[in-house]
Amino acid sequence: MIIDAHAHVVAPPALYAYKSNLLAAGGYYRGNLGISPEAIAEAAAGNISIMDSVGTDMQLISPRPFQLMHSAKPEEVVRWWVEANNDFIAATVALHPGRFAGVAGLPTCAGSPVTDALDELDRAIEQLGFVGVLLNPDPYEGTGPSPTLGDRYWYPLWEKLVEYDAPALIHSAGCNSGRESYSAHFVTEESIAILSILQSDVFNDFPGLKLIVSHGGGSVPYQIGRWQAEALSLSLGGALDAEPFEVGLRRFWFDTVLHHPPSLELLFKTVGADRCLFGTEKPGSGSAINPETGRSFDDLRPIIEGMDTLTVAERAQVFEDNARLVFSRLAARLPARS
Amino acid sequence: MIIDAHAHVVAPPALYAYKSNLLAAGGYYRGNLGISPEAIAEAAAGNISIMDSVGTDMQLISPRPFQLMHSAKPEEVVRWWVEANNDFIAATVALHPGRFAGVAGLPTCAGSPVTDALDELDRAIEQLGFVGVLLNPDPYEGTGPSPTLGDRYWYPLWEKLVEYDAPALIHSAGCNSGRESYSAHFVTEESIAILSILQSDVFNDFPGLKLIVSHGGGSVPYQIGRWQAEALSLSLGGALDAEPFEVGLRRFWFDTVLHHPPSLELLFKTVGADRCLFGTEKPGSGSAINPETGRSFDDLRPIIEGMDTLTVAERAQVFEDNARLVFSRLAARLPARS
Amino acid sequence: MIIDAHAHVVAPPALYAYKSNLLAAGGYYRGNLGISPEAIAEAAAGNISIMDSVGTDMQLISPRPFQLMHSAKPEEVVRWWVEANNDFIAATVALHPGRFAGVAGLPTCAGSPVTDALDELDRAIEQLGFVGVLLNPDPYEGTGPSPTLGDRYWYPLWEKLVEYDAPALIHSAGCNSGRESYSAHFVTEESIAILSILQSDVFNDFPGLKLIVSHGGGSVPYQIGRWQAEALSLSLGGALDAEPFEVGLRRFWFDTVLHHPPSLELLFKTVGADRCLFGTEKPGSGSAINPETGRSFDDLRPIIEGMDTLTVAERAQVFEDNARLVFSRLAARLPARS
Amino acid sequence: MIIDAHAHVVAPPALYAYKSNLLAAGGYYRGNLGISPEAIAEAAAGNISIMDSVGTDMQLISPRPFQLMHSAKPEEVVRWWVEANNDFIAATVALHPGRFAGVAGLPTCAGSPVTDALDELDRAIEQLGFVGVLLNPDPYEGTGPSPTLGDRYWYPLWEKLVEYDAPALIHSAGCNSGRESYSAHFVTEESIAILSILQSDVFNDFPGLKLIVSHGGGSVPYQIGRWQAEALSLSLGGALDAEPFEVGLRRFWFDTVLHHPPSLELLFKTVGADRCLFGTEKPGSGSAINPETGRSFDDLRPIIEGMDTLTVAERAQVFEDNARLVFSRLAARLPARS
Amino acid sequence: MIIDAHAHVVAPPALYAYKSNLLAAGGYYRGNLGISPEAIAEAAAGNISIMDSVGTDMQLISPRPFQLMHSAKPEEVVRWWVEANNDFIAATVALHPGRFAGVAGLPTCAGSPVTDALDELDRAIEQLGFVGVLLNPDPYEGTGPSPTLGDRYWYPLWEKLVEYDAPALIHSAGCNSGRESYSAHFVTEESIAILSILQSDVFNDFPGLKLIVSHGGGSVPYQIGRWQAEALSLSLGGALDAEPFEVGLRRFWFDTVLHHPPSLELLFKTVGADRCLFGTEKPGSGSAINPETGRSFDDLRPIIEGMDTLTVAERAQVFEDNARLVFSRLAARLPARS
Amino acid sequence: MIIDAHAHVVAPPALYAYKSNLLAAGGYYRGNLGISPEAIAEAAAGNISIMDSVGTDMQLISPRPFQLMHSAKPEEVVRWWVEANNDFIAATVALHPGRFAGVAGLPTCAGSPVTDALDELDRAIEQLGFVGVLLNPDPYEGTGPSPTLGDRYWYPLWEKLVEYDAPALIHSAGCNSGRESYSAHFVTEESIAILSILQSDVFNDFPGLKLIVSHGGGSVPYQIGRWQAEALSLSLGGALDAEPFEVGLRRFWFDTVLHHPPSLELLFKTVGADRCLFGTEKPGSGSAINPETGRSFDDLRPIIEGMDTLTVAERAQVFEDNARLVFSRLAARLPARS
Repeated sequence: MIIDAHAHVVAPPALYAYKSNLLAAGGYYRGNLGISPEAIAEAAAGNISIMDSVGTDMQLISPRPFQLMHSAKPEEVVRWWVEANNDFIAATVALHPGRFAGVAGLPTCAGSPVTDALDELDRAIEQLGFVGVLLNPDPYEGTGPSPTLGDRYWYPLWEKLVEYDAPALIHSAGCNSGRESYSAHFVTEESIAILSILQSDVFNDFPGLKLIVSHGGGSVPYQIGRWQAEALSLSLGGALDAEPFEVGLRRFWFDTVLHHPPSLELLFKTVGADRCLFGTEKPGSGSAINPETGRSFDDLRPIIEGMDTLTVAERAQVFEDNARLVFSRLAARLPARS
Repeated sequence: MIIDAHAHVVAPPALYAYKSNLLAAGGYYRGNLGISPEAIAEAAAGNISIMDSVGTDMQLISPRPFQLMHSAKPEEVVRWWVEANNDFIAATVALHPGRFAGVAGLPTCAGSPVTDALDELDRAIEQLGFVGVLLNPDPYEGTGPSPTLGDRYWYPLWEKLVEYDAPALIHSAGCNSGRESYSAHFVTEESIAILSILQSDVFNDFPGLKLIVSHGGGSVPYQIGRWQAEALSLSLGGALDAEPFEVGLRRFWFDTVLHHPPSLELLFKTVGADRCLFGTEKPGSGSAINPETGRSFDDLRPIIEGMDTLTVAERAQVFEDNARLVFSRLAARLPARS
Repeated sequence: MIIDAHAHVVAPPALYAYKSNLLAAGGYYRGNLGISPEAIAEAAAGNISIMDSVGTDMQLISPRPFQLMHSAKPEEVVRWWVEANNDFIAATVALHPGRFAGVAGLPTCAGSPVTDALDELDRAIEQLGFVGVLLNPDPYEGTGPSPTLGDRYWYPLWEKLVEYDAPALIHSAGCNSGRESYSAHFVTEESIAILSILQSDVFNDFPGLKLIVSHGGGSVPYQIGRWQAEALSLSLGGALDAEPFEVGLRRFWFDTVLHHPPSLELLFKTVGADRCLFGTEKPGSGSAINPETGRSFDDLRPIIEGMDTLTVAERAQVFEDNARLVFSRLAARLPARS
Repeated sequence: MIIDAHAHVVAPPALYAYKSNLLAAGGYYRGNLGISPEAIAEAAAGNISIMDSVGTDMQLISPRPFQLMHSAKPEEVVRWWVEANNDFIAATVALHPGRFAGVAGLPTCAGSPVTDALDELDRAIEQLGFVGVLLNPDPYEGTGPSPTLGDRYWYPLWEKLVEYDAPALIHSAGCNSGRESYSAHFVTEESIAILSILQSDVFNDFPGLKLIVSHGGGSVPYQIGRWQAEALSLSLGGALDAEPFEVGLRRFWFDTVLHHPPSLELLFKTVGADRCLFGTEKPGSGSAINPETGRSFDDLRPIIEGMDTLTVAERAQVFEDNARLVFSRLAARLPARS
Repeated sequence: MIIDAHAHVVAPPALYAYKSNLLAAGGYYRGNLGISPEAIAEAAAGNISIMDSVGTDMQLISPRPFQLMHSAKPEEVVRWWVEANNDFIAATVALHPGRFAGVAGLPTCAGSPVTDALDELDRAIEQLGFVGVLLNPDPYEGTGPSPTLGDRYWYPLWEKLVEYDAPALIHSAGCNSGRESYSAHFVTEESIAILSILQSDVFNDFPGLKLIVSHGGGSVPYQIGRWQAEALSLSLGGALDAEPFEVGLRRFWFDTVLHHPPSLELLFKTVGADRCLFGTEKPGSGSAINPETGRSFDDLRPIIEGMDTLTVAERAQVFEDNARLVFSRLAARLPARS
Repeated sequence: MIIDAHAHVVAPPALYAYKSNLLAAGGYYRGNLGISPEAIAEAAAGNISIMDSVGTDMQLISPRPFQLMHSAKPEEVVRWWVEANNDFIAATVALHPGRFAGVAGLPTCAGSPVTDALDELDRAIEQLGFVGVLLNPDPYEGTGPSPTLGDRYWYPLWEKLVEYDAPALIHSAGCNSGRESYSAHFVTEESIAILSILQSDVFNDFPGLKLIVSHGGGSVPYQIGRWQAEALSLSLGGALDAEPFEVGLRRFWFDTVLHHPPSLELLFKTVGADRCLFGTEKPGSGSAINPETGRSFDDLRPIIEGMDTLTVAERAQVFEDNARLVFSRLAARLPARS
């Protein structure tokens, strides 16, 4: 069974027109989403045919992150929009429960306590049956001082996630800094997420916390030598008896959304296949055709299947076993591993 | 001949105490640097013994970037401090002209035109005999809207550099965002530098411009698949007939300051050894001892020498030839390639 | 012939989904609007059937103002979005040239000179054949110090409009002040527009300028006594020989978008039917059914036709003649007045 | 008996010179108001002769709103200034208790909790014998995010007012936005006050609250059709079974400070004479002579007396009965209705 | 002849009530000052009787500085207010040309070029016959980055003053920092004025510039030892051959507004009686009665007359000669020195 | 015994290089101070030889104030830096306990509660044996709204100081306003400290509080006449029965750091020798050679010894007795007064 642990929902224009209306109304009214069942079914069917074409059995779908506008004001706009996304995902999952599971957006808002987002977390897990959450580590979206994930600001969320045994997929949203596209900002934020958590007590205080870092861990596996050395450097705040950086790094999970095979190999070599989950973000920013291969960049299954540096068991971990381990709420409803 | 193209000056505490005084005085007076010739000689000798211990023949030394405080105010403080650094480097080079060459800091200041820094560039090249410059792409140091290197803001600098045929080593300085250490910010800024320039006309307008990206290019070689796909994606601003991203990327030069051998291999494979310059940043943040090897992380010469994926000619490019090509003002004064 | 001088384009969700994408992309790419001809035709046909149901012969259609996001950043987002709206309107007009004419949005941006918007004005008039413009007097959308229309900031626009003999329909866009809905802000801005212009030299310097104030002139016709008195009050900056306020007020044109018959009567009595243009903004915020009449609030034709305080000639002015006078570029292409 | 429910105190220059001193002293000292009893008597006598000239029996006098500087800093300046106004009013009332009653200014301050103003409210009602308060809905005076009157920020004030059965006259103060004169801002704020309260639970939570909207309700009676339609529009946040807007509107009281007879007629027709209180704001911004009538614009008594659309009973409501109803603390000390 | 070189105009409350109106009107109108000739005469007569009581022959009168509100916005308010002050002073001088001469306020505004104030300077000197100006070195009034008097910002003013051979009395206005009363701010600003000018080229570039520092030079004569030492300290930006601080200090003129005799003695000893002008600021903040002497603190004439440390000639310099020297435009119209 | 109550520690460059590193690291790590015992001994010996050369028996040494950077961010940087200074001082005192005693820096931070600094106060007094504290009244260092010392913000510190019977030496740190050097800012802040405390209840609420004002009290003794008059002026917030200003002033202690003998005389005359402590700040900004005397400006012992206006007893108070009185924790460990 091939589980794509990092995918986003496919939706008709009406969903995003609704976002546009929410923004224009400035929080004065919520309006109606009003997407017909037919339109939902059509979008879902389109995605299933893409999945079939690349051999994906199941997708864990979350909102399109770059559309999530966590920094929009007033906050009602964010909340209503995230709820609409989760509702749409739930409707999609309901149509194809064997092919999709939901990963929920959270209405974290720039400048507000994270506790404001927990009602929607409860709703998503308990009422909508979602199996994990999408977590934007930068609610300011490039415009302000979001507390890093190492900050105690996030502790109420960690508590909830541990309680639900639900993982978070770390994935930033938009970027309005004027210096990075949202896509480049993904990589920056994933790196900050890892580094700030490893400088904090988060994993000590929440040993059961499950965090998946998108896009193969940002820059960290590539730049690991720098962090290994600094962790051991007295003059840079390290210590000779510090936990080696590469050990701490393996407390995270990683997806495989890297569209360059040598980078994927580096990822497996550096963090271990036993910490990686198959993910493609397809259809998405990697869906262009690679002129060298004639296949889309995000068609990663054959690439991983063709890697002779992985054992059969490791491939199984990547494609399925790790996803079952991390998404325990999904595993509970799946048929047993064949 | 082994040329270390990315190294920083070794200086006694008095240099940094002077910085402290400059900041405290708030621009009201410049004071005296007042470091004795003996202290300079002692610092330089210490560095030479480090170079000898790892087999480096020559270092291209620039100021310690994280000390450069480009965002300090008033701007006189930045200018005086950069000048003091360049003066100190010049004094070091004068003591060992066969072992060191200078790479100049530039007094670019947050919120000021780049032209304010060009007098010091002239002084460094013409009077002090420096062979290149250190370029901080984020003078705001994590606190504001620095124009990216793709912005026309930087054009007067590009003109000067092309005129001098002098390269710039892209390397950010401090970081006061509260979200990244300066070290993590290096990686972020190197990535922004590459991506913003490749979305701009810089290399078209300045075909002779030589830019070296520090630390193996930030995150870009690792995340290259994402950028290859986006460049070809119509819906993401790309075009089917766009220059392939990997082609554009090779317009830059890269150093080898990656302390993780598999990452170095990925770098050579992705951008080509013919675009890489040996660099160690030693002594620096990589100087801790790797407990697995018993050698310092930044002792990169034996690692590169031991890579069987490189040809002899490629190793020569990395260790010497590319540095001669890029630093033409250095090459002009070196003995001919043996 | 019944000309509805204040109407907004009817468009499918894909237009507003495109806006959402523009915002999310942060100016990094423009993407494709990609609305099919069928979708355009369907939307236009829907609107024509509404027009038929209330007996409107022609609509002058402009973008939906509350969607125009003049205060969004970066400015490319505003520009691309306004262009997409104008393109969509042009496509609609092309399908039914006898039923629609275009009134162009302008990409005026908070904090930028009005001259930045003039290229799109030229394009709309000269290439797309539009007959007037929609003018947001508050590009900051409730968040900052937009120069009032009495300020010389706007003079380059007035020059262009006079040159083209094209009118501007004054109509604010969104409102993010947190104190007013965009709808309430319309009224505020219309009032500010009138008062600031009458305190300035605009009409002296541009006697040929044609300005239509939306929604029956905001609060001004109702509050006119206050302004009449102040204009004559020495201690409040007035003068005994000042132009009477009610005379100055008649330099503007007004639409009839007031869904309350007594208010419409006050408007005609106060500014004169010879300064009013029939307008309904239908379909729009007035399209709910009035439970007392069973007709929609914005079905204004029968109300005006039923007013015995208007002469036949006055009704003709309101329904058709004034529109021909003000929109001279439209009149030039219409069949002669029957 | 003719009660003018909206009038402001007439004071000698020394009162406003005191304000100037307070501002200049920056809160460092309070200084002395120091107005002689003779000067107070002279000012009061002048006002009584104006009242006599237009046939007003009693005025409810409050501070001149545009002088109240609620946004001044430090806050002591505002507090001392409001107290000085209330003291001056109390002294005026004490001289002519049959002709005047006091309506108190409140030292609400931009950025401070409304509770800071309640001590002065207590003092005014309990010690000075005032019968109502003047309420500025925008303490930031056009420069910032004043919570609208629909916000729970104001609840402590509503509680007090209900407890005292004292009405508030909604009337903004100065305006420093640079976009509106204070006079135009009055109209804007009155409109925001009505709309924000009707979108809130205020009247449900405080059914006994008595709010009088100055100047005939800003723009709302004129623009009522827009609000009636939106209240019933599903896509704009309304509901088919919502309370009709015109019903909610009648929860407010309105004064007659409209110097244009057709507007007065619209007011009576739209909100009902049973919700209107005679008010002239005389002497004030309407005191210029209307060249058409030869009388001052604010000489409203003969205009209302001459309206044949009002019944005798309605005129009595407007001139006296409603004032007795709303200002119950005044009624308690007046002779019985003759 | 006793000339009081530092005095402020005595005016009725109506002048300051006018200021209050200007502020309330927010620049929308100027209104009328409207002070009767009788009121002006009464105020002037009051002041002359004070002068007579302490034996002052002539006062050079300027606006009350703490009332000048240079930081008020919009700038029209400042301009109109300063003009009103100068007009009032001119009217006062016209009544008693032998007892008063005018020193003009200048409408320098926070954040605007100093050139905006030069029209009023011309008017005051050329049309109103004023003999010098009052100069506030901190137009931001404690709230922002006013350029110090050493900054080239002020050069256009220096040029004009030299051209007119008119002196400036350095005297700050209000203070809204929340940390200093305006009175304490006077002292701070006088000190900054001296120190910043002596660190600049002002006196080199404008050798004819005449600057009088109010209140005995702030803190500088008392703290002079610190500045003498620093001027000679290499490590603090000084130089062994620098102009001695006490020499530079004597380029300024000083008034005697120090109400403590030992301080006056220190002043004369430190800067020399030949650089001091008799000044009392009477009536003003020093007019309280000193319980030890039974005379007002600002009754300085007998104190100076009683100082045996001054020669007869020095006393003449202080009381008259220096004023004639500095105020050459006054001297030209005075009878010759008896 | 000559006790110099105002002196700063003499340290090698490494201390200030450490500050530079702290700033550069942005709070991410603390690093090591790493100054050798030899370097500490060398610096201390140098200072002792200076003390011997001017006849000082004991110095109370505190950190160099202008280096303390209370406004730096993040706050860890300030805390770590102050701790390093106190540690260095403690090490110096430990080498020469008969010649030095410690006065502690406090990590008060701009924008934080003063309670954050109390742990270090405890450590300094209880563990390091310090005898008083250095108090910066402007943690914002010229850039923001530091609460004045009269504000209740400081009460928790006053409580602690009274509890320890430890005095505070009021002395500002750096200045980044761009208008004053740190040295000029010292004077400003000392003046604000005195004036704000005397307008508050501090000495009433903390009668045992001991505050020493540096540099002879800023400007206050020189400008005292102004404050005496205002304290008695009704119109300026004073009162006829107010405590005379000169009485209140004597609740403070003053040091003698005035390098101008007439100023010293004014100080003694104005506040009384019984409130003054000998202080030189040597070596420091007064250490340049006075060309007139051939001695350094800060060599104050002979000047005071030579003043015939002081009695023998007064000189003893200044040189020793007052220091014993104020620094009771020092007195407890000194040999008895000989």
